[in-house]
Amino acid sequence: MTEKKAKKIVLAARPQGAVRLSDLQVKEFSIPTISSDELLLEVNYLSLDPYMRGRMNDRESYAEPVKIGDVMTGETISTVVASEHPDFAKGDLVLAFTGWCTHAATGAANVRKIKQGALPVTTQLGVLGMPGFTAYGGLKEIGKPKNGETVVVAAASGPVGSLVGQLAKLYGARAVGVAGGPEKCAHVRDELRFEAAVDHRSADFRQSLKIACPNGIDVYYENVGGAVWQAVLPLLNRFARIPVSGVVAHYDSSSQAHGPDKLPETMMRVISQRLHIQGFLNFDYTEKLYSQFQSEVSKGIQDGLIKYREDIVDGLENAPSAFLGMLEGKNFGKLLIRIREPND
Amino acid sequence: MTEKKAKKIVLAARPQGAVRLSDLQVKEFSIPTISSDELLLEVNYLSLDPYMRGRMNDRESYAEPVKIGDVMTGETISTVVASEHPDFAKGDLVLAFTGWCTHAATGAANVRKIKQGALPVTTQLGVLGMPGFTAYGGLKEIGKPKNGETVVVAAASGPVGSLVGQLAKLYGARAVGVAGGPEKCAHVRDELRFEAAVDHRSADFRQSLKIACPNGIDVYYENVGGAVWQAVLPLLNRFARIPVSGVVAHYDSSSQAHGPDKLPETMMRVISQRLHIQGFLNFDYTEKLYSQFQSEVSKGIQDGLIKYREDIVDGLENAPSAFLGMLEGKNFGKLLIRIREPND
Repeated sequence: MTEKKAKKIVLAARPQGAVRLSDLQVKEFSIPTISSDELLLEVNYLSLDPYMRGRMNDRESYAEPVKIGDVMTGETISTVVASEHPDFAKGDLVLAFTGWCTHAATGAANVRKIKQGALPVTTQLGVLGMPGFTAYGGLKEIGKPKNGETVVVAAASGPVGSLVGQLAKLYGARAVGVAGGPEKCAHVRDELRFEAAVDHRSADFRQSLKIACPNGIDVYYENVGGAVWQAVLPLLNRFARIPVSGVVAHYDSSSQAHGPDKLPETMMRVISQRLHIQGFLNFDYTEKLYSQFQSEVSKGIQDGLIKYREDIVDGLENAPSAFLGMLEGKNFGKLLIRIREPND
Repeated sequence: MTEKKAKKIVLAARPQGAVRLSDLQVKEFSIPTISSDELLLEVNYLSLDPYMRGRMNDRESYAEPVKIGDVMTGETISTVVASEHPDFAKGDLVLAFTGWCTHAATGAANVRKIKQGALPVTTQLGVLGMPGFTAYGGLKEIGKPKNGETVVVAAASGPVGSLVGQLAKLYGARAVGVAGGPEKCAHVRDELRFEAAVDHRSADFRQSLKIACPNGIDVYYENVGGAVWQAVLPLLNRFARIPVSGVVAHYDSSSQAHGPDKLPETMMRVISQRLHIQGFLNFDYTEKLYSQFQSEVSKGIQDGLIKYREDIVDGLENAPSAFLGMLEGKNFGKLLIRIREPND
């Protein structure tokens, strides 16, 4: 702890449409003191995830919106630098919801000790953490891909999409990924070994998706919404399952968007194809599936059957621009902010 | 068989928006002859149902559209007047998909003999037939109401909605019905004993629905779509289930409707409330549930716990105007066309 001051990033203004850099602001604050049963944490890695865009809106959701002036919420890998709790000692590495900051005081109940395994600790925020579990829970509990079925997922080079497709393959299904640009599509096809990758930025996206799914779509793992959903809808087979973990394309819009009303078309398809659309949050499944998820995916990685990619940006000050880039699809792999290497 | 000629009603033109009488036309035809294994049927009762509106559109769905010039599809109670099949004899009463007509030749495989029970035969097209089974299947397999939960259904005085609510009550849930006009609402409340009935034509519909559901909505049985869905959406509780059997409000619209796009709002709710939306057709459940349905609902009727109401119109010629009226909500109870009383 050589810094005299801690830093945090607060929500300065609610975004009107797309997020602007001025909506987020760096603030200095004094390193907090801790009281009985609390821990003082120094943050090592901050995870940046699309759900955070939703928290910036003043709209009822599964979680409270971030208040103006409050630190942006987020999960981190942190090091215990002072402990007033018997179960934790200086030097322990933990997962904590400190938000976007360098230091935080927290109750011991709000953190989870990281058991260091064979894999880099950063995987605890990605393929073995919340994004990975989001992929796993939705696919296992709602998607339920069967042997020979076709599973489509968007943001396929990202931490959720890449695991959805690779798990689908392990379960005997065909994986088709949607990604933005030729570089990401090549990664999805050649590194992640999806059966096909389709570029949603290409002019013939709809036609390419159709060609990539000659037997239609049995599972569409929905994490983007918008134009990808419109392309997927006519290809969905009878009794297709659609786990919905996010609709990033809609986070910027106000509650009712302009343009033709696309709800009737969706609902007509729901009936004619007997679609099953279901929203979920990863923590709905924690009790039932978390330990199974960690052992299954760890083994997959160690056996070389599951690959993951991280996109690490240095410095808390760079979190806002990295976050804006992520919302535009500029990151390539799980986006993490490195604030200070553990044991540095 | 005193008529020399048979009559049928054909689709004369595809509706542009709302159905007009001129889209349907009465035609005379010769009473058909039958060949080996076939039956000649004289139609007694024709069931008119909202799904028929969907079949008039030239749009891919779970069933082929009716072709221009073809008889309108529909299920009937019919009497066998001539049989070339050993399992059927003159005078047998059967359920058959003859369509809107007075006479039809059909293969024996396409009909089901009616076992006359304690209840009027017309129940086989209503509370004990396809509409009743639609209510039962969707509620049992997708809605799954639990004790103390709130179940909302629209078209609550109709054959599907009335059974959904009464079954929900039998399963220990609160039933709230949406219906059009004070007379239907009184019926839903006073005869069917729903806990509340809300008039979707009243100016304060949204507010009234909210008041009728003080603990939110756990199951919304979707059979209309449109404005009722918009009123229901903000009231849906976490993990609410939405079996979708029809969206009558959208059958008149072309594939993309004008106005603001309501899909983003629905999908945001799907995630934040973890909604489960699932389309189904009654025949998806025939093998699993049909006999259980018939015995459970028959018993409910005989015990006075399930009530049903029929709206019977005489004469095939009146089917088109009765059908248009149904689409506008003018019928009150299960709509049937009486063509000829059995054994008349």
